[in-house]
Amino acid sequence: MRLAMIGLGRMGANIARRLMRGGHEVVAFNRDPAAVTQLAGEGAIGANSLEDVVAKLTAPRIFWVMLPAGAPTQDTVDKLMELSEPGDIIIDGGNSFYKDDIKCGAAARDKGLHYIDVGTSGGIWGLERGYCMMIGGDKEIVDLLDPIFDTLAPGYGSIVRTIGRDAPDSRAERGYIHAGPTGAGHFVKMVHNGIEYGLMQAYAEGFDILKGKSSERLEPDERFDINLTDVAEVWRRGSVISSWLLDLCAIGLARDPMLEQFTGQVSDSGEGRWTIDAAMEEAVPAYVLSAALFARYRSRVDHTFGDKLLSAMRFGFGGHVEMPQ
Amino acid sequence: MRLAMIGLGRMGANIARRLMRGGHEVVAFNRDPAAVTQLAGEGAIGANSLEDVVAKLTAPRIFWVMLPAGAPTQDTVDKLMELSEPGDIIIDGGNSFYKDDIKCGAAARDKGLHYIDVGTSGGIWGLERGYCMMIGGDKEIVDLLDPIFDTLAPGYGSIVRTIGRDAPDSRAERGYIHAGPTGAGHFVKMVHNGIEYGLMQAYAEGFDILKGKSSERLEPDERFDINLTDVAEVWRRGSVISSWLLDLCAIGLARDPMLEQFTGQVSDSGEGRWTIDAAMEEAVPAYVLSAALFARYRSRVDHTFGDKLLSAMRFGFGGHVEMPQ
Amino acid sequence: MRLAMIGLGRMGANIARRLMRGGHEVVAFNRDPAAVTQLAGEGAIGANSLEDVVAKLTAPRIFWVMLPAGAPTQDTVDKLMELSEPGDIIIDGGNSFYKDDIKCGAAARDKGLHYIDVGTSGGIWGLERGYCMMIGGDKEIVDLLDPIFDTLAPGYGSIVRTIGRDAPDSRAERGYIHAGPTGAGHFVKMVHNGIEYGLMQAYAEGFDILKGKSSERLEPDERFDINLTDVAEVWRRGSVISSWLLDLCAIGLARDPMLEQFTGQVSDSGEGRWTIDAAMEEAVPAYVLSAALFARYRSRVDHTFGDKLLSAMRFGFGGHVEMPQ
Amino acid sequence: MRLAMIGLGRMGANIARRLMRGGHEVVAFNRDPAAVTQLAGEGAIGANSLEDVVAKLTAPRIFWVMLPAGAPTQDTVDKLMELSEPGDIIIDGGNSFYKDDIKCGAAARDKGLHYIDVGTSGGIWGLERGYCMMIGGDKEIVDLLDPIFDTLAPGYGSIVRTIGRDAPDSRAERGYIHAGPTGAGHFVKMVHNGIEYGLMQAYAEGFDILKGKSSERLEPDERFDINLTDVAEVWRRGSVISSWLLDLCAIGLARDPMLEQFTGQVSDSGEGRWTIDAAMEEAVPAYVLSAALFARYRSRVDHTFGDKLLSAMRFGFGGHVEMPQ
Repeated sequence: MRLAMIGLGRMGANIARRLMRGGHEVVAFNRDPAAVTQLAGEGAIGANSLEDVVAKLTAPRIFWVMLPAGAPTQDTVDKLMELSEPGDIIIDGGNSFYKDDIKCGAAARDKGLHYIDVGTSGGIWGLERGYCMMIGGDKEIVDLLDPIFDTLAPGYGSIVRTIGRDAPDSRAERGYIHAGPTGAGHFVKMVHNGIEYGLMQAYAEGFDILKGKSSERLEPDERFDINLTDVAEVWRRGSVISSWLLDLCAIGLARDPMLEQFTGQVSDSGEGRWTIDAAMEEAVPAYVLSAALFARYRSRVDHTFGDKLLSAMRFGFGGHVEMPQ
Repeated sequence: MRLAMIGLGRMGANIARRLMRGGHEVVAFNRDPAAVTQLAGEGAIGANSLEDVVAKLTAPRIFWVMLPAGAPTQDTVDKLMELSEPGDIIIDGGNSFYKDDIKCGAAARDKGLHYIDVGTSGGIWGLERGYCMMIGGDKEIVDLLDPIFDTLAPGYGSIVRTIGRDAPDSRAERGYIHAGPTGAGHFVKMVHNGIEYGLMQAYAEGFDILKGKSSERLEPDERFDINLTDVAEVWRRGSVISSWLLDLCAIGLARDPMLEQFTGQVSDSGEGRWTIDAAMEEAVPAYVLSAALFARYRSRVDHTFGDKLLSAMRFGFGGHVEMPQ
Repeated sequence: MRLAMIGLGRMGANIARRLMRGGHEVVAFNRDPAAVTQLAGEGAIGANSLEDVVAKLTAPRIFWVMLPAGAPTQDTVDKLMELSEPGDIIIDGGNSFYKDDIKCGAAARDKGLHYIDVGTSGGIWGLERGYCMMIGGDKEIVDLLDPIFDTLAPGYGSIVRTIGRDAPDSRAERGYIHAGPTGAGHFVKMVHNGIEYGLMQAYAEGFDILKGKSSERLEPDERFDINLTDVAEVWRRGSVISSWLLDLCAIGLARDPMLEQFTGQVSDSGEGRWTIDAAMEEAVPAYVLSAALFARYRSRVDHTFGDKLLSAMRFGFGGHVEMPQ
Repeated sequence: MRLAMIGLGRMGANIARRLMRGGHEVVAFNRDPAAVTQLAGEGAIGANSLEDVVAKLTAPRIFWVMLPAGAPTQDTVDKLMELSEPGDIIIDGGNSFYKDDIKCGAAARDKGLHYIDVGTSGGIWGLERGYCMMIGGDKEIVDLLDPIFDTLAPGYGSIVRTIGRDAPDSRAERGYIHAGPTGAGHFVKMVHNGIEYGLMQAYAEGFDILKGKSSERLEPDERFDINLTDVAEVWRRGSVISSWLLDLCAIGLARDPMLEQFTGQVSDSGEGRWTIDAAMEEAVPAYVLSAALFARYRSRVDHTFGDKLLSAMRFGFGGHVEMPQ
């Protein structure tokens, strides 16, 4: 199929490449034209404006928007809605908030357009491994786009089949699902990222405890000096906690056993927060996912005002003066 | 009554003073003799060794040990057990681990001695306000010591009587209880301190959120610039969250609204940790109390190794490079 | 002053009573006229419709709306905006979401009206103790309404003055503050309630640990059988964790030591959730306040689907079959 | 090599089988002789008492103890120490507390014996996949036993090599490590299980949020009805959160999409608790791992006393009567 890829950052460019390798024609557009030139050199049809993108597609046009969530995505979707004709299809493949999708979907419907939200996991490894996709929108459009999703997905690969699985729809086993109506794709992807935060924090705390076992806080005869790089490696083999994130821990620790290149200030994107929002709307307890998010917040400040207030209270009742330790 | 006060730190000296004000005779001992001299000047009988303490008491001797938990208390109790005669009474008024009390109590019993554990709350305010005491040990000895506890406790004071309370034992209303057998006093005090951590952290987080409302992370029109000193003050008046700890927040904020004198590194003593230990032994979920303890741990390091591991994973899957913010 | 009280539930009726006791004239309105009749019998001017309320006030009219947050408050405020004349003042004294206040305030301004948000703490005790109030809105209107706030607030009472406090504005010490522009009152009240959740959960966990010490999970010689009613009482006296909420624990336990009248399913209103929302917007870690909220969510379900998924995983890797315990 | 397998439960029997497949001779013993008969039928040398086990081995004897942690393991190790001769080797392959290992190791050393602790992960899948092993003890003994560990471990298999790994010791890549001195093996395994709890809870909360999106708590137009079985499946393919535990979720959900066979009461073994103990000794914040443990505690009670105390406080300040919902 021919489709446009709008946004040629790390994710967008690689998605375009995987599509081209799969025999699709990609009209490539990016705000910075250097990325367009690059991708045109690899076989894409370069475009120099959204209008040009529109001109280089035929109805029903397919636009895959792969931009940062929020204003960049919203502004582009809005512009595409103006330039499109009834029957055209806008795919938001980024990390948009699912409630924004629902609004965009309604706006698109009003203009006779189709709007599809695709939550895409796979990171910089997706070009080779394929992308895991969670798709929201109308069934007939999701079906129409199937050749695209089929190309992007990992496929069966060498992954062992789930025991007991006996579902007529093979898409999940090939790496993509039609999660539900507009917004459902990004909703599932949002929870995916919420879980990701929790998993990452579980490993982080575990390795912290392993490392702490050599700390001077303990008596010398209570200490173990554990090789964390080897621990990460061995857990990849036959253990209950093997995972792709653990593979990444092993890579990171093999490269830099003390992780000295990192400051320890950890960013968060919207999904972790939105996942907690969803938990609160549903009255679902989310102790671990929220704690994982807060750990990132905490990592970005030296000391909280609250910490100082604790000291003020301790000074108040016990005359304790907190000293740097 | 005549009793010995062993350990004349902030707590021990004030307890001795309150006892003397109440008409008791105090034999005062401290490793550093300056404190003995000071207290002797206020009416106490100074002693220059534990042997001297023993000599200045008459059977049954009453020793109140008011020393830091762990080795200082344990060593003194051990020595007193050697110097004592059957029928003598050792009171541990510090913050000992209740399981250590149980061991000490058994050892004392083997020697015909009595061992009483007293959890004491009140801090530097206790001299004036009186001390809240949670007492463990044999009933007859607790009863024998009643004049001491009665003097130290706050008494009815001006505190409004609890609606519906109709208990024959008035001691709780006067500020002390016989909590149970040896160890029960410090167990209740331990949980008291565990709760204290949780309460303090709840205020800390709340004030952090009030303060964060003025942060540059928010858009200018989303910010409020709230006077935290006034908020602490007003909540003391008729609100659901008024408390003595809030009074201390109000004092601390009145003195230093930005709390600039504090680094934000917060110490913890053993009780918070032991409370979580107890919760785990009992299989009781203690989300809040553990989180309050961990907040203190976290306050004492710049960045955890775990935080860096999060960054290493993020770099691994997304090529994200975490930047100082 | 003359003002209208709209909404004569537990809070509204008592606020009206305290105002009348203070010499103010109250026009009382409620959807269910029985409450109007009741309050008219106590000296209020009854009204049988919002139109009637308007007619019984003189410009500038003062409307105090005391209704459940959300639709009940919003609908009434909307209606009052239609019926009012420029210069009239609408006070929302309920537990509205502060972002809704900001919208209402802007709408009021467009019509030449004044909108004031008052977060009110004190519960059913406020009639006697007075109400702690956190007020948002324009300074001149807050000043104009001062006689009302002054009457409702607890006043200095017998509360000890905060050491070191030296602020020109005495309102905080009398129990109310002008927290900032529209929305700031309810924002501060929201955080107040978030803290309240955290404080309550800290006590809840602590008493759970005390109670768990008698559980059959422990060996008989590890158990203590602690009198929780007495513990709550004694902590009211000179301890670091004395508070008004603890007073309520003491009352509850004195009345029903096993708390058998309660199922253990705990409701939450919006403030706890909004506080976490605010923390997430500000990137403030709120471990304790969120855990306190989640404990309530968890209390309302028998078992989570997530719990079952844990069992499914355990069965998957270890063949464990989870049995009722 | 010839060695004894003591304890032929699910784990012990399969470890024995994998050893025999690898050419080792196994003397098999179990309290219940049926398991011995079964394994003898598969080629093992049956033994009918620990004395018989000793008789059927030659010096230096190798005993692999594979029993539940605590008394069963301890009693057997104690007995073996009596029956052994200097130079014999006792391996504890179960889930013992690492501090118990340290005591056992010292006792063994006093008798001229060797004690090795092996943390073993792999569950009922280990027979086919191999076991991930974390080993503590003296280097020369660990080296001596290498043929055994080599057979039990998964080996390189088809797992992709860690990018950047360049370590001389290939054991980690083949699935086992010498973690350090006595106790270090079980310490690393303990943290492994602590992480396992955290990972499991992260998935549990995520799926709870997905499921909650269809709850009646939400307005009909806010709901999504998401196929959880398909979500688990698709996340196995190219997503950031793919893992072996997720594979197990997929299996469990494929078999029983509503997980109706499970009550939702989740057991915990010692390791989760000990991991938190270790975190507390090291002053490492472990928010997520502790919350994961507490979720299991909470799953095993209908309502906590603490929940009821929350209701009692709410009744106290607001007159709220909590109703079943």
